Amino acid sequence: MTQNERYVAAVQRKFHLQTIAKRLGWLENSLEFHYAYRALSGELALSLHHVFLKSLRTLGSEEQIAKWTPLCNEFQIIASYAQTELGHGTNLRGLETEATYDAATQEFVVHSPTLTATKWWPGDMGRSATHTLVQAQLICSGARQGMHAFIVPIRSLQDHTPLPGVTVGDIGPKMDFDHTDNGFLQLDHVRVPRENMLSRFAQVLPDGTYVKLGTSQTNYFSLVVVRVDLLLGEIIPLLQKACVIAIRYSVIRHQSSIRPSDPEAKILDYQTQQQKLFPPLATAYAFHFLASSLLEFLHSSYDAILNKDFSHLPELHALSAGIKAMISDSCLQGTELCRQACGGHGYSKLSGLPSLVSRVTASCTYEGDNTVLYLQTARFLVKNYLQAQAQATPGSTLQKSLPQSIAYLTTTDLARCPAQKAADFLHPKLYTMAWAHVATRLIKDSVHHLETVMQSGADWDEAWNQTTVIHLQAAKAHCFYISVKSFTETLEKLENDPAVQQVLKRLCDLYALHGILTNAGDFLHDGFLSGSQVDAVRTAYLDLLRLIRKDAILLTDAFDFTDQCLNSALGCYDGNVYERLFHWAQKSPTNTQRNPAYEKYLRPLLQSWRSKL
Amino acid sequence: MTQNERYVAAVQRKFHLQTIAKRLGWLENSLEFHYAYRALSGELALSLHHVFLKSLRTLGSEEQIAKWTPLCNEFQIIASYAQTELGHGTNLRGLETEATYDAATQEFVVHSPTLTATKWWPGDMGRSATHTLVQAQLICSGARQGMHAFIVPIRSLQDHTPLPGVTVGDIGPKMDFDHTDNGFLQLDHVRVPRENMLSRFAQVLPDGTYVKLGTSQTNYFSLVVVRVDLLLGEIIPLLQKACVIAIRYSVIRHQSSIRPSDPEAKILDYQTQQQKLFPPLATAYAFHFLASSLLEFLHSSYDAILNKDFSHLPELHALSAGIKAMISDSCLQGTELCRQACGGHGYSKLSGLPSLVSRVTASCTYEGDNTVLYLQTARFLVKNYLQAQAQATPGSTLQKSLPQSIAYLTTTDLARCPAQKAADFLHPKLYTMAWAHVATRLIKDSVHHLETVMQSGADWDEAWNQTTVIHLQAAKAHCFYISVKSFTETLEKLENDPAVQQVLKRLCDLYALHGILTNAGDFLHDGFLSGSQVDAVRTAYLDLLRLIRKDAILLTDAFDFTDQCLNSALGCYDGNVYERLFHWAQKSPTNTQRNPAYEKYLRPLLQSWRSKL
Repeated sequence: MTQNERYVAAVQRKFHLQTIAKRLGWLENSLEFHYAYRALSGELALSLHHVFLKSLRTLGSEEQIAKWTPLCNEFQIIASYAQTELGHGTNLRGLETEATYDAATQEFVVHSPTLTATKWWPGDMGRSATHTLVQAQLICSGARQGMHAFIVPIRSLQDHTPLPGVTVGDIGPKMDFDHTDNGFLQLDHVRVPRENMLSRFAQVLPDGTYVKLGTSQTNYFSLVVVRVDLLLGEIIPLLQKACVIAIRYSVIRHQSSIRPSDPEAKILDYQTQQQKLFPPLATAYAFHFLASSLLEFLHSSYDAILNKDFSHLPELHALSAGIKAMISDSCLQGTELCRQACGGHGYSKLSGLPSLVSRVTASCTYEGDNTVLYLQTARFLVKNYLQAQAQATPGSTLQKSLPQSIAYLTTTDLARCPAQKAADFLHPKLYTMAWAHVATRLIKDSVHHLETVMQSGADWDEAWNQTTVIHLQAAKAHCFYISVKSFTETLEKLENDPAVQQVLKRLCDLYALHGILTNAGDFLHDGFLSGSQVDAVRTAYLDLLRLIRKDAILLTDAFDFTDQCLNSALGCYDGNVYERLFHWAQKSPTNTQRNPAYEKYLRPLLQSWRSKL
Repeated sequence: MTQNERYVAAVQRKFHLQTIAKRLGWLENSLEFHYAYRALSGELALSLHHVFLKSLRTLGSEEQIAKWTPLCNEFQIIASYAQTELGHGTNLRGLETEATYDAATQEFVVHSPTLTATKWWPGDMGRSATHTLVQAQLICSGARQGMHAFIVPIRSLQDHTPLPGVTVGDIGPKMDFDHTDNGFLQLDHVRVPRENMLSRFAQVLPDGTYVKLGTSQTNYFSLVVVRVDLLLGEIIPLLQKACVIAIRYSVIRHQSSIRPSDPEAKILDYQTQQQKLFPPLATAYAFHFLASSLLEFLHSSYDAILNKDFSHLPELHALSAGIKAMISDSCLQGTELCRQACGGHGYSKLSGLPSLVSRVTASCTYEGDNTVLYLQTARFLVKNYLQAQAQATPGSTLQKSLPQSIAYLTTTDLARCPAQKAADFLHPKLYTMAWAHVATRLIKDSVHHLETVMQSGADWDEAWNQTTVIHLQAAKAHCFYISVKSFTETLEKLENDPAVQQVLKRLCDLYALHGILTNAGDFLHDGFLSGSQVDAVRTAYLDLLRLIRKDAILLTDAFDFTDQCLNSALGCYDGNVYERLFHWAQKSPTNTQRNPAYEKYLRPLLQSWRSKL
């Protein structure tokens, strides 16, 4: 399908889904909607509605929530969320769109002062939305008050034409997400009433007085909510699907033989294929548990925020930033590995894998560029570490009660890993401790480097920019530690039968040990592990690959995706890979449409030798 | 454009190019063709012609070359090359297509005995080719003689319809390469004359006697030629273009500020952005020199082969396999890094980056899956190392004269790196030696593991499969060493002015040191580097980023791509990024075609609340 066809199909699906939902009385956020979304692989238009609603509920006053929620739920309006601009993305403070309060009319004048202030990327905005929530610089009482959110009508509810002062359209071809009409928006002094600024945490009084009711972080809270929701709703399932397809294909595909006299082996029986596919499989499980625990933390923080307790916000922000970066980076890496592990067929769109890759790769950028997000986590780590250090009495260890997720920084630590043989590395306590050691060392190292650069005369900002590569490394180790800890804690709580417990423990072991091998330098650097201990980790790791092999298919079946949802000639449950590839290829437009190139170019070319040319 | 539109456009370009070439009298393989190909970014149909011709010249007899070359050059036929099948790719021995000699008629009966024997992926075959070179199992004198190449006519030269017994078509949608009609081909007992088997190195006499004139490797030589040609002709330029686009964009894009009081900084001034973009830039230079030296080796080997001297074939095969794997892997990684470094705009197809990524990713699979290729290199390393070891007298070092590219395995080696401070790591001799040390250790380690598994009772094949992950690591280190050595040797030969020499040396330093940091564990493992030496490498590396910053734009200008060839809104020479993005988006079909979704779905949805539903 072309981009336009996919968009229309996605709107059509949404339309029918809403019609069914209305008839059957499904509630918003109900399990029914959840399953429908999953079954349709999110190929639905108008999903920014939910982002609008989440922002409204987080940032809006009770009156605003009461007014706009039913308009959304009943589709009397189609809402979107306009934040990113042509010239600025992750750095929200740099956004240029302005909302200037005019006390005379009690209106905000929302305006794009430059070309780069054009809103760019908002989903559902290019061709669908009637309203959008615009993030803009509030200007009132003659001062800039920072980013605030304004509900701006952009298209007529009568005939869908852009309203006066509004220039809106689609941003054109993308790697994927053709079902979403990502749009651009230029506002030329568009006026909205004072009531359209979301005002739970900040208000502009009729006379233009600015009243702040929350912290500066509250405006970004809705971003955190969206970021966390995407992990389980969009990003992790893409990796899971890739694992299902590649692992199923790898027991159908036969290639070469392990011994010349043997019949051809299933490619999943090769160690190198296991090494490609099982770490992503273990990662898919690890991230499922990690994202679930982050979601729990989000819910408890959300309840607190609604009671004006903002104390968890910095930790939630730092955790969600780093975890989103780690999950999206690894999901991309794993999905692409799965795709490549299917050889040439993984390059065919009929495998279903290319669209998983091009979709997951977007997640490394949307809702915050991963490098910027990791550095936000790093700032949190450095800041808390320095504070704790400052409060520690001389000679003692860090004493301040640190936020829970970084409390491990204060625990005493072994200088050498006590493991003596491969089997010793199969203890969750041991490898969790090993990861805590490395994360702690790297965070201390990053603080040390920062301080060294400052001692040589640089100020904080300059020193920070000269050490960001080092902070990045520390933040990554911290996040990986958090993910290992979350997996091992999940194992402890498991009440499945022993066989299930055993196989999940193997995945957990594999996840942690693969992480150690991939980052062996960090463990060898201070002698925490010796070379022969790293060899022992590798022995344990290679052994795990062999053990996981026999449960691999069941572990992917457990994700419970239907064939339709996988949409892959390689990954179907029945294993008829080649028949399906052949059959699907026949239906391609390249075979069903005639070839105009023959008459126009190929025939003249083939016959030109006969001419006098 | 749709897949069909891109195919037609590519045929059209080829048609016009051939017309111009004929008029101007361009010779095949001339610089004119080379520049035209580069200017059109290879978006040309009918390029498998060259692969056919290369195979013909390598594998064909003088008579065959004399007969078919002019037919190709004058486009009296359109030729393709049919090797990969639905069920088998890189493992050529597994191909199922059969060519059975019938002495009664002096013909070969070429046949696809199963569905999985269907040829799948050959370029230009889906909709264009009239002839194809089929790789098939030769059966004669009642025995299977292995893979041989047969010229098979597949479409009528009169009306382009498939010939009797031929089922042919297009394999459908792919990640990219829409300009090429990759095809499928089923042959049902298709007969071709005895003369159609390419017979430089093997012949079937009229009575069916099989005569072998070369080694079993000669049949694969044409693959090596194609593999090496693709490096400079297709793969490396994709990385170079990505570097040009991302680095140019990074001096136009401003984001945040290093100090709160400063104006917004160019993103290329951030250390993390430099860390993303400069290693790929250095890699693009490193690979240019590496591929050039491999091409020289290929040419000298080719001359020898034509004189029936096959002695360089094993080394050429091993070198080209590993180097192709390393170059395509790294080019993919670098191109994707460049894409992500452009944030959201890198996800827009208007940036030109998505198509570079989806095109380079194919190179990890075509002409040999990278994992399989690395393992072929590893087998060469292990085999030669063991042979040399067997010939060494007890107590002495390895004495056999090893092939040139692995001669370093016998040189004596320091156990500890002598560098004491960051500046010491800026000596090409030092880091080349460091890479030689690590490659040697890993190769010895892989042999050791293989022997250990065999001593515990496994046979060679089983032991090999249990240690492939380790061999893979060794082969990668070997290839990286080769690339560092090639870069440093290029530096020595340079006769540019000192400023050019200086900046190229910085790139070489960056390439080698970035490699050490990325693989720090391998250097720390046996204590060759200490933790503080790795820190010194990092200090030198971070310093290089800063130094390369000021020459970065010039280093990308030097690749000399025109704006048209880059085809990127972000990467144009004039830097008008935002104007061009905005302007190009307007022209997208998503803005120029009407939106049928509004009348059909959006309006009914928006107005449904008014109805009685």
